[in-house]
Amino acid sequence: MSARTERERVELANTTFYEAMESGDFDILSGLWLDGDGDGDGVSCVHPGWPVLSGRGEVLRSYALIMANTEYIQFFLTDVVVSVAADTAVVTCTENILSGGPAEEAGELGPLVGQLVVATNVFRRTSDGWKLWSHHGSPVLTETDEEADDETPA
Amino acid sequence: MSARTERERVELANTTFYEAMESGDFDILSGLWLDGDGDGDGVSCVHPGWPVLSGRGEVLRSYALIMANTEYIQFFLTDVVVSVAADTAVVTCTENILSGGPAEEAGELGPLVGQLVVATNVFRRTSDGWKLWSHHGSPVLTETDEEADDETPA
Repeated sequence: MSARTERERVELANTTFYEAMESGDFDILSGLWLDGDGDGDGVSCVHPGWPVLSGRGEVLRSYALIMANTEYIQFFLTDVVVSVAADTAVVTCTENILSGGPAEEAGELGPLVGQLVVATNVFRRTSDGWKLWSHHGSPVLTETDEEADDETPA
Repeated sequence: MSARTERERVELANTTFYEAMESGDFDILSGLWLDGDGDGDGVSCVHPGWPVLSGRGEVLRSYALIMANTEYIQFFLTDVVVSVAADTAVVTCTENILSGGPAEEAGELGPLVGQLVVATNVFRRTSDGWKLWSHHGSPVLTETDEEADDETPA
């Protein structure tokens, strides 16, 4: 298996993670996180602006809560960078998020909100494919401009 | 080498990372990030509120910039959780930060600012010890209370 193939598999796992959020499919999302033989104890998750959540139970409960309060969410991923070393991979990406909560009136969609979030996702290779070990998302609060590509932001 | 020993080594590398920031020692900080044989290309860093920085050059320039603009910084680490798997480790912690910039008047310290930041730090074991592969820090914006220990925050 070439390094290129593994890189593609990691990127696919990363894409699947966001698609599970978009479709609100808790089973797929749950299956993407490390599990079994105590590995699930080591997972961690930081949602934008949240404290750290540790362990599979706490992490998955947070997603159930978010899904219950999200009527609509779409992720446009940009700047996806994959770094693979042996059985671990680090993916960074920009999540350009468009989301809406439940509406005030039945049958309506709540107001849509745009959010700029950056994420660091750590995956581990298991016999069942690449699984999430850690997800850390955070809001981008600084001014961004073209200089961000070759200069550190002030 | 027992798993416990490796865990301690990872935690020591994590502590050294913050001590290097406190003492403003760029050489120690630089030596803590993955280097050599192209490994440095895969490093990534997110400072609180910043976009993703990728590659050793971009990451280290950001630290040089931060150190130049920080007169005083102290980290009180809490909630340190270490998860080790083979040659990779994920550390999450809360950085209770007290910092101050250069003062308006010479010889004075600028106003001190407290910040609550959570971090996910990914380390890789090399022949030269555990080195940083990824650092992601983000501000805690939600209300935190005692429930955070066993319930997901709303």
